[in-house]
Amino acid sequence: MLVLEDRVRFVETDMMGVVHHANYFRWFEMGRVAYLREAGIRLTDLMADGYLFPITDARCTYRASARFDEEILIKTDLVEVSRVKMVFAYQIRRKADNLLFAEGFTQNVFTNQDNKVARLPNHYFERLRDYASRGRQEGVL
Amino acid sequence: MLVLEDRVRFVETDMMGVVHHANYFRWFEMGRVAYLREAGIRLTDLMADGYLFPITDARCTYRASARFDEEILIKTDLVEVSRVKMVFAYQIRRKADNLLFAEGFTQNVFTNQDNKVARLPNHYFERLRDYASRGRQEGVL
Amino acid sequence: MLVLEDRVRFVETDMMGVVHHANYFRWFEMGRVAYLREAGIRLTDLMADGYLFPITDARCTYRASARFDEEILIKTDLVEVSRVKMVFAYQIRRKADNLLFAEGFTQNVFTNQDNKVARLPNHYFERLRDYASRGRQEGVL
Amino acid sequence: MLVLEDRVRFVETDMMGVVHHANYFRWFEMGRVAYLREAGIRLTDLMADGYLFPITDARCTYRASARFDEEILIKTDLVEVSRVKMVFAYQIRRKADNLLFAEGFTQNVFTNQDNKVARLPNHYFERLRDYASRGRQEGVL
Repeated sequence: MLVLEDRVRFVETDMMGVVHHANYFRWFEMGRVAYLREAGIRLTDLMADGYLFPITDARCTYRASARFDEEILIKTDLVEVSRVKMVFAYQIRRKADNLLFAEGFTQNVFTNQDNKVARLPNHYFERLRDYASRGRQEGVL
Repeated sequence: MLVLEDRVRFVETDMMGVVHHANYFRWFEMGRVAYLREAGIRLTDLMADGYLFPITDARCTYRASARFDEEILIKTDLVEVSRVKMVFAYQIRRKADNLLFAEGFTQNVFTNQDNKVARLPNHYFERLRDYASRGRQEGVL
Repeated sequence: MLVLEDRVRFVETDMMGVVHHANYFRWFEMGRVAYLREAGIRLTDLMADGYLFPITDARCTYRASARFDEEILIKTDLVEVSRVKMVFAYQIRRKADNLLFAEGFTQNVFTNQDNKVARLPNHYFERLRDYASRGRQEGVL
Repeated sequence: MLVLEDRVRFVETDMMGVVHHANYFRWFEMGRVAYLREAGIRLTDLMADGYLFPITDARCTYRASARFDEEILIKTDLVEVSRVKMVFAYQIRRKADNLLFAEGFTQNVFTNQDNKVARLPNHYFERLRDYASRGRQEGVL
């Protein structure tokens, strides 16, 4: 599990006075990118090697409304990974009291530039699997 | 079912050269707002009457990648409605050949300003239920 | 001059209850893209030919606040064009009564993939200049 | 002057492979909000007291293109302030080598809920003026 901290931006609110629901998917992405970076995988390297990683499924369940200027925690865990896809789980919490704002999932698949499914090369896959297994031993999220 | 037309904006793309996945939830919202407007329900009226309508669940499954400047269809249907919640289903398709880019669901609940669940007054609920039942008779989406 | 119609999206509002100011630059872009398309220039063709067109200057002056669900007009004119840059002017108006919400400018330069200034080939430049000169004869914006 | 650090999000890029120009205005806002917070002014307090602070002018000049995952500095300074308006100046730089990506300005005015210009009460104004004068003595930005 990886935890990022961020703060709700004014632009992320809407006229109901709370964070617009679509922004949670941006936070999930920040968590996913940071998780991969920590695992030693840079998305720019993947792209330079000819791999894309489109999202094929995204889901968010909203429990409470985050508001402007609140400090949040973005908790990210890799719950499933193979050479053709990865599934991440997320929780967005209020930093002050750990209140759960939302939780969700995304699935990415790996493809080549022609949009065909591509198997992730070993050196990427092993780094990701190893990092994920270390994270799970900590038993977090 | 309600069908809106729109065109992919440059800002909606990302460095993979396709529409960023979070934008589909913006398109779903456009469909939902238009559906409610057609049913005779303006969100500004709901808010003026003290009701909020937070999203509690949002999901999208991605089938193909929409690209810059493509004309799209946003197809929206109300699949479940009660005095406390509404569930919408969506399809995003390419206008040229009806290719399915993505499909998804959202659930809104109705609350008061204090974030407590609130029952939608009859005059709103009946308009929505009537409009939905007419739509279903057409058997579309 | 080119006029597009659009409608304020819920996601475009912020907790002040009006459209967030950054969204006007998205509307300017919609106008600019449509103007170029009408002139016979597709940005995807430009990119396929190795040209990029980064924004080097953007400015907006806000006169009144657009609100959710209002229908707007995006008025776009090309006020300066050469083989190395183009300057567009914009007005965002309320469709109902022509109220001016905002007006602004952007400047794009043309570059190659290595970010060096590149001169636009004749067939692009002439289409753009001809379309702009026809527009100016109409004396609009 | 106030310096924030942030990192370019994937969603902030566009199909030219660089940060979309509209996002710089989101970064300016982050800087402005943080500056006001440090000065002891919370926008939620201002709003609770009946004040709004719409942007009336926004400008950005782009010098170089920020890219995905780069760490950036958001430098913010208050260059003019009175009881009716405030003007901020910004620089966005690459953290690694201080490369200037963009610089810009925004002007906010203070209004009441009916959109009439309102004079900022003394306790807000003095905090802001005092914080700004301390910042200028440091001679930064």
